[in-house]
Amino acid sequence: MPERIDADVCVVGAGYAGLTAARRLSQGAKSVVVLEARDRVGGRIWTQHLSDGAAVDRGGAWLGPKHDAIFGLAREVGVSTYKTWVKGAHLLVDGERTRRYTGLIPKISPLAVVTIALAQVRLDRMAKKVPLETPWTAKRAAEWDARSVAWWIERSGITAGIGRDLFEMAVRGLFTGDLNDTSFLHLLFLVRAHGSINTLFSIEGGSQENMVEGGAGSIARRVADDLGDSMRLSSPVRSITQGDDHVLVDTGALTVSARHAVVTVPPALAVDIAFDPVLPDDRLTLYRSAVAGPESKTLVVYDEPFWRADGFSGQTSQPGSACEVTLDASPATGSPGVIASFAFGAVAERFDALDPAERRRAVLDALTRRLGPRAASPVEFIETAWWAEEWTRGCSMAHLPPGILTRYGPLLREPFGRVHWAGTETSTTSHGAIDGAVRSGERAAAEILDRS
Amino acid sequence: MPERIDADVCVVGAGYAGLTAARRLSQGAKSVVVLEARDRVGGRIWTQHLSDGAAVDRGGAWLGPKHDAIFGLAREVGVSTYKTWVKGAHLLVDGERTRRYTGLIPKISPLAVVTIALAQVRLDRMAKKVPLETPWTAKRAAEWDARSVAWWIERSGITAGIGRDLFEMAVRGLFTGDLNDTSFLHLLFLVRAHGSINTLFSIEGGSQENMVEGGAGSIARRVADDLGDSMRLSSPVRSITQGDDHVLVDTGALTVSARHAVVTVPPALAVDIAFDPVLPDDRLTLYRSAVAGPESKTLVVYDEPFWRADGFSGQTSQPGSACEVTLDASPATGSPGVIASFAFGAVAERFDALDPAERRRAVLDALTRRLGPRAASPVEFIETAWWAEEWTRGCSMAHLPPGILTRYGPLLREPFGRVHWAGTETSTTSHGAIDGAVRSGERAAAEILDRS
Repeated sequence: MPERIDADVCVVGAGYAGLTAARRLSQGAKSVVVLEARDRVGGRIWTQHLSDGAAVDRGGAWLGPKHDAIFGLAREVGVSTYKTWVKGAHLLVDGERTRRYTGLIPKISPLAVVTIALAQVRLDRMAKKVPLETPWTAKRAAEWDARSVAWWIERSGITAGIGRDLFEMAVRGLFTGDLNDTSFLHLLFLVRAHGSINTLFSIEGGSQENMVEGGAGSIARRVADDLGDSMRLSSPVRSITQGDDHVLVDTGALTVSARHAVVTVPPALAVDIAFDPVLPDDRLTLYRSAVAGPESKTLVVYDEPFWRADGFSGQTSQPGSACEVTLDASPATGSPGVIASFAFGAVAERFDALDPAERRRAVLDALTRRLGPRAASPVEFIETAWWAEEWTRGCSMAHLPPGILTRYGPLLREPFGRVHWAGTETSTTSHGAIDGAVRSGERAAAEILDRS
Repeated sequence: MPERIDADVCVVGAGYAGLTAARRLSQGAKSVVVLEARDRVGGRIWTQHLSDGAAVDRGGAWLGPKHDAIFGLAREVGVSTYKTWVKGAHLLVDGERTRRYTGLIPKISPLAVVTIALAQVRLDRMAKKVPLETPWTAKRAAEWDARSVAWWIERSGITAGIGRDLFEMAVRGLFTGDLNDTSFLHLLFLVRAHGSINTLFSIEGGSQENMVEGGAGSIARRVADDLGDSMRLSSPVRSITQGDDHVLVDTGALTVSARHAVVTVPPALAVDIAFDPVLPDDRLTLYRSAVAGPESKTLVVYDEPFWRADGFSGQTSQPGSACEVTLDASPATGSPGVIASFAFGAVAERFDALDPAERRRAVLDALTRRLGPRAASPVEFIETAWWAEEWTRGCSMAHLPPGILTRYGPLLREPFGRVHWAGTETSTTSHGAIDGAVRSGERAAAEILDRS
């Protein structure tokens, strides 16, 4: 006989959306059970402790200045943040040349700089016309949703060459999927949800401005600790059955009978849960379309951040390479030194096809070229292929193909009977970020508290 | 000849509303001049440095957990916050008895506790029906605005005695004025703007949860530093003259010609500025009615927070006494020990009528009774009578008499020609708090950036 628990609410998934929903519901005097498939909490945020105790983030790590919901949650549980290291020169590898620069845009040709700036202004201006809560109601929604992001970049006026490569890589880094298969309306909505395209790209004043003391997972861990026995790990949900006045959430070993459920899994994973009654076709189409793309994040750990003393920020890029973007992801103490290296979309896929020794050599060769010979000898080398993670399957978030947002967008947050939905894909403000996940959890909890 | 400066925007007042508006406008590439009457920035926030360098707050000091706008501004300029000290027993002086308690409500009679809890639930429920942006459109707005806060407390069901005295004092602490002359709708709006009445009363999870490293004024000082020469101190504005395409803001010694102005002074002070064209009668009535009440804040400084070792939190109360409420307001380091003591409304007025030596004796006697003999010998004793401050005249914010909010409320934020309005009295979320001031400055800046 499977164990059976009664609760007011059953939360499926213990990423930031699920943990926040559970916390707010508990604070609202609801009894809660959280079922998490993995043996850890945090979802796409995954903090690992090195042998010396230092915390590094294998997944989501950065918080932008307007990410009030996650900052508020961090304050609540007594976790501090610090500013990402930004001093020193950034590097852009352009064929045989390595360019040093500071600020957001490298000193590539003046024409490229101007065309990128103009394209960004136009993008921000269009994004302002996208209603945050209902992007599908924008006046030009149908037109924008029929086009792909690649289509727009092609017509953006950005001069072909390293400038366009860099811009394309930065946008591909946001969605990680094939930009030919990503709706331009989704890009405009994403920009709207973060204020401007530069906010998404930037460290200072932008989405990569702050890191979390003890790693981004430390907040999740404390929230989970507060939940105590309500938190059930290693409990993947198989089925959700709804009755007139309750919902049964079943893992095989455990059945939770609740008044409401909050499902927080990435949309593409929702279709693997056996719903009874079944999910309607329009929802199935939405979830099947909302896949997340390939992204690899490699943490290269050194005794110290030696590049800082050499006058480098650790921020480097080479579109199309094994290390398309690197950032200094060292702890606030500056010890150890950590470089986070990323590849996105098709580049990540290509990179993943190499064998592990080749991948390591490709990364260390690229870093050595940029940061000097000390880069060749890291003390740790930690790879995470997010699309291979059974309970995530792609990062950092789902990208929507053309035609989906206008047709099925309203379903993202619409309850299905007693099942409410959270997760960063369902958020408006901070869509796709940790902060969006937290906000979505608060929204779902409020929906249930209002209903009962 | 007075000095003349041209700018895009002239901001009147360098409290948190004015400083934030100026910062956001500068970030939006507008040229700005800020005119401040005092020789310091911060307005109702006033950090003083003691001889040993420790910072204490003579005015606004506390930040609640949802005060995202001021926390965001603090992060932007690199200022940290810390949690208000809450460990140990609180004390309530009730006639000859001194009761120790923990949590929010003292262990007075069970009936009093229950009636207070029920009254708070009812208050929160009514407050939920007040639209945050337009409280005057609540279905029962006319009825609630016709009643006073005192009228409601009388009918609240709270048993007469120390319980009701305590509740009345806590509400009087929010408005500081005569509760017979304060609109019940204004109280409901205030509760709505902060989420619940307990949020307003509480340290943990509430409006007194966090303090600012280096004092609440340190954020203002850094924002002002960033503004550089745009910041003009000791420049009280005498007149504001509007033309077709500009506005002239004049101090006698200096005339600023700008496209727009942002006036951030407390509403009651706006009537002292000579407007041309003159302010219409409805605005004058609103501003003349929106006075702030008497409140005294006394900082009593000791070598160390000795009460902590004795098992006391430093949180004490005795409604009607010279020290109606005290809180531990020590710096994060715990050195020196600082007790902040408050009296509100008529009690503050009565207290102020004493001569300084009598006031000092009254405060130290009260503290000694509560915290023991060491309380009799502070190293510093700093009084601030906010209603006597020429450029503030009452704290912590304006309270509206019955009938004003429904009739003139929409004018609080409505521009007057090229003059926009900010200040915590114009805010919705966090109305009356520092966070509200910051939000109002951001809103006024956005209005102008949208117009131009």
